Amino acid sequence: MPNPQHSILLGAALLSLASPALGGTSENAALTTAVQKSWPEFIEFLRLPNVATQSAPDIRRNAQWAQATLARHGWQAQLLPDGETPMVFAQWKAKSKSARTILFYAHMDGQPVFPKAWKQASPFEPVLRARDAQGVWQDLPLEKLTQTANPDPEWRLFARSAADDKAPILMLIAAMDALVAQGKSPAINIKLILDSHEEGGPPTLADVVEQNRALLQADGIVMLDGPMHESGRPTVVYGHRGGTALALTVYGPREELHSGHFGNYAANPAMTLARLITGMKDAEGRVLIPGFYDGVDINPSLKAVLAQVPDDEAALQRRLGIAASEKVGASYQQSLQFPSLNITSMIAGEPAARRTIIPAKATVTFDIRTVPGTPAERQIALVRKWVEGQGFHLVQGEPSEAERVRYPLLASITGGGGMKALMTPLDAPIGQWLRSGLTRAFGQAPVQIPIMGGGVPSAPLADGLKAPVILLPLVNADDSQHAANENLRIGNYSNGVKSLYALITNP
Amino acid sequence: MPNPQHSILLGAALLSLASPALGGTSENAALTTAVQKSWPEFIEFLRLPNVATQSAPDIRRNAQWAQATLARHGWQAQLLPDGETPMVFAQWKAKSKSARTILFYAHMDGQPVFPKAWKQASPFEPVLRARDAQGVWQDLPLEKLTQTANPDPEWRLFARSAADDKAPILMLIAAMDALVAQGKSPAINIKLILDSHEEGGPPTLADVVEQNRALLQADGIVMLDGPMHESGRPTVVYGHRGGTALALTVYGPREELHSGHFGNYAANPAMTLARLITGMKDAEGRVLIPGFYDGVDINPSLKAVLAQVPDDEAALQRRLGIAASEKVGASYQQSLQFPSLNITSMIAGEPAARRTIIPAKATVTFDIRTVPGTPAERQIALVRKWVEGQGFHLVQGEPSEAERVRYPLLASITGGGGMKALMTPLDAPIGQWLRSGLTRAFGQAPVQIPIMGGGVPSAPLADGLKAPVILLPLVNADDSQHAANENLRIGNYSNGVKSLYALITNP
Repeated sequence: MPNPQHSILLGAALLSLASPALGGTSENAALTTAVQKSWPEFIEFLRLPNVATQSAPDIRRNAQWAQATLARHGWQAQLLPDGETPMVFAQWKAKSKSARTILFYAHMDGQPVFPKAWKQASPFEPVLRARDAQGVWQDLPLEKLTQTANPDPEWRLFARSAADDKAPILMLIAAMDALVAQGKSPAINIKLILDSHEEGGPPTLADVVEQNRALLQADGIVMLDGPMHESGRPTVVYGHRGGTALALTVYGPREELHSGHFGNYAANPAMTLARLITGMKDAEGRVLIPGFYDGVDINPSLKAVLAQVPDDEAALQRRLGIAASEKVGASYQQSLQFPSLNITSMIAGEPAARRTIIPAKATVTFDIRTVPGTPAERQIALVRKWVEGQGFHLVQGEPSEAERVRYPLLASITGGGGMKALMTPLDAPIGQWLRSGLTRAFGQAPVQIPIMGGGVPSAPLADGLKAPVILLPLVNADDSQHAANENLRIGNYSNGVKSLYALITNP
Repeated sequence: MPNPQHSILLGAALLSLASPALGGTSENAALTTAVQKSWPEFIEFLRLPNVATQSAPDIRRNAQWAQATLARHGWQAQLLPDGETPMVFAQWKAKSKSARTILFYAHMDGQPVFPKAWKQASPFEPVLRARDAQGVWQDLPLEKLTQTANPDPEWRLFARSAADDKAPILMLIAAMDALVAQGKSPAINIKLILDSHEEGGPPTLADVVEQNRALLQADGIVMLDGPMHESGRPTVVYGHRGGTALALTVYGPREELHSGHFGNYAANPAMTLARLITGMKDAEGRVLIPGFYDGVDINPSLKAVLAQVPDDEAALQRRLGIAASEKVGASYQQSLQFPSLNITSMIAGEPAARRTIIPAKATVTFDIRTVPGTPAERQIALVRKWVEGQGFHLVQGEPSEAERVRYPLLASITGGGGMKALMTPLDAPIGQWLRSGLTRAFGQAPVQIPIMGGGVPSAPLADGLKAPVILLPLVNADDSQHAANENLRIGNYSNGVKSLYALITNP
């Protein structure tokens, strides 16, 4: 755990130490031009389907497109072989031999899509929209974006991966374009790796890092992923929760039964499952499984940093459409310092069919978000032990006939793996460099988030390259990432280019 | 509520009053021939897809096939128009003017199918199977059935509606064939109606009865539906539970959320739903909603009749693959005297996708089985009131923004309609006639079930024709009706033909 009070002081000190603000006339003009020029390529990139769990050829096309585009813009770019779906590596060297080396990370792949839930023809056919006077999103022709020097920052581009995580890739290309247009070189050695398996499929980043350690070596790693703070202010994130997943199935009768003939006699596994999982939490969302929160340490210093985050929880709740929050932490930021136990799906029977049956089984899938003090393996073991403590016999796969005869309560639990949690000390040099760059770009110190809720695969980078990792989120908080109608706020794109420009010019 | 003790005595008395047993040489030969001749037509009938909720043309084809087949076998048969999917009516008159008139009821349509869950190419391509020495079902060529005079009664025919409810239709045709082959006429006026909407779609039986009251008028109605008693003994059923359905949806955030960024903050509607429904029942399956069981009357006389049913609950539980039953009633038969509240499906998120999200809503569908003292509308009103009592605000459709801001707990409940419960007094003349016929056929009194668990649409017949309704189930109890791998035991088919033959020859 870092010393957050120290970091707060550092943050304040940096304000006065910051280099002259960005934004001379030529810099601004170069940035505006670079942003405008990059829209068509961004749209082209978004048109490439990128669900890694569904199509390896799709991901190959994304990688080939990214490598070719980076090369066309003057980067040294190459594919990093990785079975059938390569990653992409690119770099641009500084003139100074003593320049620091920063490895930027982003990912090309996206979460699965359910096209029917999208309000557009395809998640891979980007749609530009503006809110009308009633606040309703209305389609605009894409040309409004590509042929306007200063598009309305409140417009949004809707497409899978518009925010998570293709935007930062194009932002970095545009930032470098703006520098090149002025005949300048970067103040740091820029390295860039584009992951092909962040959102699903077997993660391969650790292998790729292992096989390319020298190529990837850096003084620090900046992961361009995740949303900015709700306020839209520049944001630095020092860590993130880890994550793992598990599936819990409760078994009822061997086969589904006619509910008339056996309703009131054969216990319904959906009800048994509901009863089981209800016991896992209290009504305000706190996990009741003993030991689940052991290792969580919200000390007074951390509390103070968390309290500085300018959250507007009333507005957040309005945006989410909820009247109250859970009470795991005393605030939104505090709630992210705890591991979670979240239902990602639940299924019994055939919801579309309305058959009058008692289902044979019911399954809930959870994702467990972890913090550094609560490793995934321990959390899953606690869940298993607790379920057994509720009287369930845990089976491997379907119950055997002998198990069916013997145990009234039968369940199985599968899962594990996932990402490690991260927390980089708030006073590490990488953080100081990042804060000073952002402060120069926007004239104010960034919001500091010790741990963000969502996970990114920092462990393969942090462990494989033995370098500190920090996160620079650039996209809007209300981007619906992972869900239908994912979108990028247009103003975030130009500000993201500016942020990255400030960093690559920050020695 | 009838006087069951009276009925028990009646049942015993009938044993001695029964006509001479069936089964003279010529009768037996005629029955065997009629059964063997009917297999090809039964198989042809099963090959007609019959899911009413999915295809009206399919149901039309079934009706046309049934009408043509009945006519070919000598029945007066006609279609009863009913919008786009006609029902079928057929009759065969007795010689005696004073003969009693019995209206038989069966249905042509079947429950939806999920072909992947079936262990055969299609639910509409019947497969004949025998158990091998290890008890595993092995396919046999269909010719083994159609070309054998005495097929093994333990063989089974697997197909949608093989048991529920196409078999009884062909059994009745075969029973009449056996009579005609001996140059005889029926001892009763036989009427037959084949329903097209028993398993789904808007039920139209009430309308058809209303429009054809004179045609359908009868002294009693025998519904050929549902499974026999587990023992396989001839079974008479005096009533059945009614049924209705409801869907309960709990609303969470307006749209699904990234579980990393909001897990521990935005309450998960699947967990909220689990908590809500868990409160509806105790751990042994008893409904805790106040008033839900009001009107249930298991008096000592009824208890005595229920106790006579030769249930083997240990065997039943083994067959279902459960180690213990719920404790709603003190026995299986008692449990059916109570209304049920059964989960037919439950859904949140996208179970196939494994996305790491907080779902926006979670839905459970229930079917409520009713008994005569617990009408459906009252049961649904009790559920609604109870849910509101748990602090939920009930919305119509999706919650409005104003409702989202105001109420932490939001849900909707939709549903209603369905079938009325039935209980015909055990000493009504229709029951006496039925018991005497079956006793003559099999040499023993049938099992008497006051109320069976599953519902049939008796109300349109009982109310529309003002005639007593009784149920004669003919198919095996372990027929997996409504589910995948529905099947008919071959021995039930020949015994069913014999049962019906005994009835149509019983004045």
